[in-house]
Amino acid sequence: MSTYDLTTFGEAQIRLTVPKGDRLATCRELRLTPAGSEANVAGLLAQLQRRTAFASVVPKTDLGLRFMGEYRQVGVDLSHVIRTPEGRMALYFMEPGEFPLPAKVTYDRLYTKFREITPDTFDWDALLDTRVHFVTGITAALTEDTARTVTFAVEEAYRRGVKVALDVNFRAMLWTPERARSVLEPLLDKVSILFCSRLDGVKVFGLEGDGPTVNAALRERYGFDHVVSTDSVNGVYYSGLQGAKVFPVQPVPVVDRPGAGDSFVGGTLHGYLDDDVVAGIDYGLRTSKLALTHHGDLTHVTPGELAIPTTTDILR
Amino acid sequence: MSTYDLTTFGEAQIRLTVPKGDRLATCRELRLTPAGSEANVAGLLAQLQRRTAFASVVPKTDLGLRFMGEYRQVGVDLSHVIRTPEGRMALYFMEPGEFPLPAKVTYDRLYTKFREITPDTFDWDALLDTRVHFVTGITAALTEDTARTVTFAVEEAYRRGVKVALDVNFRAMLWTPERARSVLEPLLDKVSILFCSRLDGVKVFGLEGDGPTVNAALRERYGFDHVVSTDSVNGVYYSGLQGAKVFPVQPVPVVDRPGAGDSFVGGTLHGYLDDDVVAGIDYGLRTSKLALTHHGDLTHVTPGELAIPTTTDILR
Amino acid sequence: MSTYDLTTFGEAQIRLTVPKGDRLATCRELRLTPAGSEANVAGLLAQLQRRTAFASVVPKTDLGLRFMGEYRQVGVDLSHVIRTPEGRMALYFMEPGEFPLPAKVTYDRLYTKFREITPDTFDWDALLDTRVHFVTGITAALTEDTARTVTFAVEEAYRRGVKVALDVNFRAMLWTPERARSVLEPLLDKVSILFCSRLDGVKVFGLEGDGPTVNAALRERYGFDHVVSTDSVNGVYYSGLQGAKVFPVQPVPVVDRPGAGDSFVGGTLHGYLDDDVVAGIDYGLRTSKLALTHHGDLTHVTPGELAIPTTTDILR
Amino acid sequence: MSTYDLTTFGEAQIRLTVPKGDRLATCRELRLTPAGSEANVAGLLAQLQRRTAFASVVPKTDLGLRFMGEYRQVGVDLSHVIRTPEGRMALYFMEPGEFPLPAKVTYDRLYTKFREITPDTFDWDALLDTRVHFVTGITAALTEDTARTVTFAVEEAYRRGVKVALDVNFRAMLWTPERARSVLEPLLDKVSILFCSRLDGVKVFGLEGDGPTVNAALRERYGFDHVVSTDSVNGVYYSGLQGAKVFPVQPVPVVDRPGAGDSFVGGTLHGYLDDDVVAGIDYGLRTSKLALTHHGDLTHVTPGELAIPTTTDILR
Amino acid sequence: MSTYDLTTFGEAQIRLTVPKGDRLATCRELRLTPAGSEANVAGLLAQLQRRTAFASVVPKTDLGLRFMGEYRQVGVDLSHVIRTPEGRMALYFMEPGEFPLPAKVTYDRLYTKFREITPDTFDWDALLDTRVHFVTGITAALTEDTARTVTFAVEEAYRRGVKVALDVNFRAMLWTPERARSVLEPLLDKVSILFCSRLDGVKVFGLEGDGPTVNAALRERYGFDHVVSTDSVNGVYYSGLQGAKVFPVQPVPVVDRPGAGDSFVGGTLHGYLDDDVVAGIDYGLRTSKLALTHHGDLTHVTPGELAIPTTTDILR
Amino acid sequence: MSTYDLTTFGEAQIRLTVPKGDRLATCRELRLTPAGSEANVAGLLAQLQRRTAFASVVPKTDLGLRFMGEYRQVGVDLSHVIRTPEGRMALYFMEPGEFPLPAKVTYDRLYTKFREITPDTFDWDALLDTRVHFVTGITAALTEDTARTVTFAVEEAYRRGVKVALDVNFRAMLWTPERARSVLEPLLDKVSILFCSRLDGVKVFGLEGDGPTVNAALRERYGFDHVVSTDSVNGVYYSGLQGAKVFPVQPVPVVDRPGAGDSFVGGTLHGYLDDDVVAGIDYGLRTSKLALTHHGDLTHVTPGELAIPTTTDILR
Repeated sequence: MSTYDLTTFGEAQIRLTVPKGDRLATCRELRLTPAGSEANVAGLLAQLQRRTAFASVVPKTDLGLRFMGEYRQVGVDLSHVIRTPEGRMALYFMEPGEFPLPAKVTYDRLYTKFREITPDTFDWDALLDTRVHFVTGITAALTEDTARTVTFAVEEAYRRGVKVALDVNFRAMLWTPERARSVLEPLLDKVSILFCSRLDGVKVFGLEGDGPTVNAALRERYGFDHVVSTDSVNGVYYSGLQGAKVFPVQPVPVVDRPGAGDSFVGGTLHGYLDDDVVAGIDYGLRTSKLALTHHGDLTHVTPGELAIPTTTDILR
Repeated sequence: MSTYDLTTFGEAQIRLTVPKGDRLATCRELRLTPAGSEANVAGLLAQLQRRTAFASVVPKTDLGLRFMGEYRQVGVDLSHVIRTPEGRMALYFMEPGEFPLPAKVTYDRLYTKFREITPDTFDWDALLDTRVHFVTGITAALTEDTARTVTFAVEEAYRRGVKVALDVNFRAMLWTPERARSVLEPLLDKVSILFCSRLDGVKVFGLEGDGPTVNAALRERYGFDHVVSTDSVNGVYYSGLQGAKVFPVQPVPVVDRPGAGDSFVGGTLHGYLDDDVVAGIDYGLRTSKLALTHHGDLTHVTPGELAIPTTTDILR
Repeated sequence: MSTYDLTTFGEAQIRLTVPKGDRLATCRELRLTPAGSEANVAGLLAQLQRRTAFASVVPKTDLGLRFMGEYRQVGVDLSHVIRTPEGRMALYFMEPGEFPLPAKVTYDRLYTKFREITPDTFDWDALLDTRVHFVTGITAALTEDTARTVTFAVEEAYRRGVKVALDVNFRAMLWTPERARSVLEPLLDKVSILFCSRLDGVKVFGLEGDGPTVNAALRERYGFDHVVSTDSVNGVYYSGLQGAKVFPVQPVPVVDRPGAGDSFVGGTLHGYLDDDVVAGIDYGLRTSKLALTHHGDLTHVTPGELAIPTTTDILR
Repeated sequence: MSTYDLTTFGEAQIRLTVPKGDRLATCRELRLTPAGSEANVAGLLAQLQRRTAFASVVPKTDLGLRFMGEYRQVGVDLSHVIRTPEGRMALYFMEPGEFPLPAKVTYDRLYTKFREITPDTFDWDALLDTRVHFVTGITAALTEDTARTVTFAVEEAYRRGVKVALDVNFRAMLWTPERARSVLEPLLDKVSILFCSRLDGVKVFGLEGDGPTVNAALRERYGFDHVVSTDSVNGVYYSGLQGAKVFPVQPVPVVDRPGAGDSFVGGTLHGYLDDDVVAGIDYGLRTSKLALTHHGDLTHVTPGELAIPTTTDILR
Repeated sequence: MSTYDLTTFGEAQIRLTVPKGDRLATCRELRLTPAGSEANVAGLLAQLQRRTAFASVVPKTDLGLRFMGEYRQVGVDLSHVIRTPEGRMALYFMEPGEFPLPAKVTYDRLYTKFREITPDTFDWDALLDTRVHFVTGITAALTEDTARTVTFAVEEAYRRGVKVALDVNFRAMLWTPERARSVLEPLLDKVSILFCSRLDGVKVFGLEGDGPTVNAALRERYGFDHVVSTDSVNGVYYSGLQGAKVFPVQPVPVVDRPGAGDSFVGGTLHGYLDDDVVAGIDYGLRTSKLALTHHGDLTHVTPGELAIPTTTDILR
Repeated sequence: MSTYDLTTFGEAQIRLTVPKGDRLATCRELRLTPAGSEANVAGLLAQLQRRTAFASVVPKTDLGLRFMGEYRQVGVDLSHVIRTPEGRMALYFMEPGEFPLPAKVTYDRLYTKFREITPDTFDWDALLDTRVHFVTGITAALTEDTARTVTFAVEEAYRRGVKVALDVNFRAMLWTPERARSVLEPLLDKVSILFCSRLDGVKVFGLEGDGPTVNAALRERYGFDHVVSTDSVNGVYYSGLQGAKVFPVQPVPVVDRPGAGDSFVGGTLHGYLDDDVVAGIDYGLRTSKLALTHHGDLTHVTPGELAIPTTTDILR
């Protein structure tokens, strides 16, 4: 049996968020929460009793320690994190924005040691002793080094028979659609389950059509076992070994948005680890809704909450 | 003339609430507010210039003092509260829950001295020198002792010609529907005004049908002067000496829910004390809406706010 | 070229606001924010790179200093503010009110030195070295002295060829409709751009009909270059040199309402200064929406935010 | 037996305090706490199980209600408070000041209805059905009307055989030493227990010397049963029927100073009510120390805390 | 090599603390921090890179989860904690107390499942695969069951050649000195390192004299390898295989006291694990000082902070 | 007459501070305050009614705007600040540290645009239209470019007859003593008033002895009009045209330390601008004490507070 259910690697970040009702240009306090797309997925699964590990390069500073505590607290194995004596943490500032003001994100994540990782940075024998290895386009987007390392990880996992999960998660602030396609496309035939929103399918892979169309086209073109596509409030679409399916999305109030997408991916992979992606998408829709109810990129959830009724009465 | 307009007794509680945007499993602060269904009703009426008294058994601790101050501040007579040198306060923890997460309540209210009250605990000559005596199913639900004391209070009030108001307020975490029915049903012929939600009518008294049907059936079967039934957002139903009436309910945003039902009861009893339950339900609908706008089980209201217009314009 | 794009004068105020979820009758903390309708307009325009000055009479106290810092921070020229060694600041207490509770404002603004201003108080040569002079009905409403000074300012500006902008902004807590009309009507033929809500048109000027009707009637009767009328969530109406136009209004969540109307006026005047009131109303609708997203009467905005897209997706 | 142990009257105030680490000239939040020297004394004694009443004139506003709740919460009888439909609350702003910055108080307490009280305002038959009547120089200082009413109260109490307690409490921001002496001196032969700091003895009554000297001189000149004089950190001095005594004062950290002097007076009067002023001064020294440990003018104390040991160990 | 450097077991608690400047009798917010003497020691050592495990019985509630996250975050192995589907968390309320008010602790820790542990509860083969096993008098004090389990643990560890560390930590609110002595004394010949304050030596073991005397007498009577005795601000005393030594204690400001004693024990055991208790006491004095600078029973420390200079200059 | 009394340039920073009682490794909130040694000096003098300007290079981000508002609010002329469309703000994280934990500062200030300034960046004709130009060793320490620009500024000011004030302010985290000396020493003959602590005199300029000795030696060696040297709590030393003088320093509690040194410099320069450095040092000692009482690098002060008495009594 493998040591882990899922392993992953990515950048460790700290988010600094403006309190509701204030603006970054005038505020006196910021909420500090650790972040990182891959860490969020590992953290969600750890709370659902999956054995997960997250690898990264994190400076030996108090901010680094703050990050470590956040994910260790929920049981993620951080023994593969390289602690460097020097270096800065990746930061991002966020003004949540009340409607109609959209959230405003300012990255301050350049010049980190993580950007210099190579295939030699991590111990792949240990890290790939896992059922699933998860990678994202965010990490591939940072530098040529990180792109090369993602490529290596996918190929090495595939070579060892480890299932690969890829979340495209295109970020226009990090790379161009063309660069994203040129880095990610060569990996796709080694990917078992792909997460790719309709919009990313259009922008990165040049597809066209509504959500189900793009979702089906991705599978047709690249032959994944499973493709999962979100399309904002329009729905979530699945095609794969379990057929094709549309999941409606229910708009809900938002206390804190970042990390909701990662919680959707984490919940879906929880089903995937039980060989039931369709059930997983149901989990994911629940965990992503839960994600919006509390602060922080990491969603806090208990196994029992995967089945929460959603009615609340007004009086009594 | 009676000394009081309304007297009541029940357990004193402290609520510990997780701040919005956090979860109990991760939070570092809790909001502390005193609570108690009967105290809330007495407190609301005191603010509307009614003379009310609340009796209980409260330990001589700082938490006990915290409770006393909350209700004394609005003018409730607490001279009938027995202070015990020892004992713990009943607590409950609450995670308010953003939609779709429902509120999550964890009781920690066992082992209190109030659970050991008997008919000898209070001075009924003084406590029943009142126009109305108010009891709830919550108190009856706690222990055999409290059930016995509620029964005694209702019978003794009836014997003295004091009007009895009963709020069924069934709580599945405290007793079964069968036990509730066996304790409460023998009291019903001594009750002048009954508060019983449609759902409680179905669960506890085995009735069937929509709100107006259950409401009418309660009156028909037990012969109260007035029966008031809430049915979530569907409406409030009245049948009694003033005929039958349906009141629409308007959904409103919720800052803090607990106590809203008690404020509805309190507002309705304000009308009942003027021999106009129909006007009282209007008051109750207003006070229960107000209850949702601020923290705490006790609703803060002024007499002038019983008639608040509800339009708010967007620009200017 | 004029020294200023816009100058104005009015009372300096401090708002003390109850935190969400509490009531003034029980609260332990108040949010302190400076306020003043005319200062808000000058402050908004200063952030949009307009040269603005605000004149007033402000005591040499720490509260006075608090006011000064708020508007100086965004670049308003406060060199025309008279600092008096003595005197109190105008205050107002506000309970924001959750729906259905409307906001509850308690003025404590009597007995200030500003109420004693006369035409001699300010240096008009300097203050009217401007393209536009802005006055409001609020200032005219305070005392006979302030009414006289507003009248003087309008006449003097007109005499010097400075464009006059007037915001009727009728406040029933300050004066009667009859008094408002008797003070403001004589000034109207010197006003270039008038802001008058449909409701104020009805109450103060005896007009009738829906928003477009009242808006058109105002122009017809008094002959302004431009009339801008808000009508709550129904819309904003324009008639004037650029024709007649209706602007739909989109209801949005409210974090903090006060100052939103001033931001609408400020945004509109930003267009007026470019000879395009119709574009200005678009700016104003945006700035007034932004105003609702953060605390304080002064809206914080950057020039780039005049063109914010308003879609936000739910998942990803 | 009298209805009350102690009655008193004075102005109701609201204190608005800058949070530690901020300044009024820049702050965004203020702590709101009710205040009033006489109310503080009545509130302290009520917590020590004395029957006390406080009379005043308080507007029917939410700020007025805030004041009422604060003192009713601890059991003070407020049935003698006149509620006026109009009028403003007396306010004062405070910047606590970290050493070496002294606390900075800005009064905003003019123009209140309380300033217009006359001997006819209160029901003296009810208010003087008490063992002790307590008055302060603060109330006498406000206006000629308040001075006249204090004079009337002292004479009327004396006439009825009610003991009079007077706290000189000279405030240079309210009146001159000369005016204070001319108002207070005629009352002194009717006073049973006088509180007068060494400094006030020097400034108001023209005495000279150190604390014990001034303390003794006051008694010698005016013939009180008891005179209690504080002298900052130097000590507290007593002379009277129980002889002469010096009490050392222990400097302690200060979380919030206002009200500490009132707590000293209240504690001392607790002893006086048991015919033991010397024990009372011990109580007062304790309650005034406790006063400094928490926010608000009203000191929260339980009878058991009158005997608190003061050692705290560092490790374990 | 053993799996662990140190293992321990004890009760999991939640502390609810009144904010500075408020009192429990009036407060509206409580600070929530997990607690537990043995968990604190394990948590401190984990941060110093020691492999530690903590065993307990913790309900499967959100409060239970809150406790788990706190200690897992710093790397304590919690795999030996038994999660029960039901049961309440041990709570304690604390009013920190400003000088001269001592801290006021109210326990609400009865009726927990931990009180029912027996020697069969834990897997001793795994838990005693350690270099040191640590137990405290607090756990022994709770019930006969817990006393029996502590006895079993000490004997079993001794039998297996695992070093035993015992912290007497006498709590008068939990048991009598006589009961403490009767439970603990039979274990002492199996203890390698004893922590016992001078006061506990006097109260529990009937010793007399100053710190060094009691410290030496403990070793003489029971023959430990090492005895460490604190004596409030007077000093810390050591006698044992490394001779006898006195350590001065430096009084420091206190932000939050609870857990400081545990941090002293943890720091000392850090040296003990390197066979240098004298160096350990130096560590302990530092970690206990650090403990006082931040909230929570668990002290947050990095290995580098074991050597912090303590001078701070005033200007520049 | 010059346009300005004092001009200066330096880096704009944002400080992110851990709240008291928490640690960076665990905190969830940070206090955000703008910072910058030269800006602080300009900001202090602006509040004392001096005409000051601060030049810098600041990105057009919300953090940049936050910085601008802070110093514009007190009246500093920021028209010489270059706003760049891109670039990051210099940040620093601070854990204030309770005694004995010293404050812990983590710089994150690399890679800013300000580091690339050259003598061509600013408009020296406008910036040197001033009585005094102020520069610091901090700016000189950042890069070769900034060193070159400081050198240019000093020479150009000297050439134009503008007095030069230099604060050595050596920061070991930014450069070595050797590099500091090689950059600063060539400028010293053009400096009118030098600020150099005893410690910096020893480390950077190789001097020896106590404060007065080092202070005198600096003047002797380089021939300044005035030399001002701080020496922690030991005292402040002056030698120059007004003779030699020692100023005792009074230790005070610290709410927030950063910026206190700049306030000392600012206060001293306030006297220097009146040709009385000795009076200025008195001002500086006061403003630096005030600096410690509130949060933020910028000290908030009013002209009247230059003469604050420092006694505070305990009781009354």
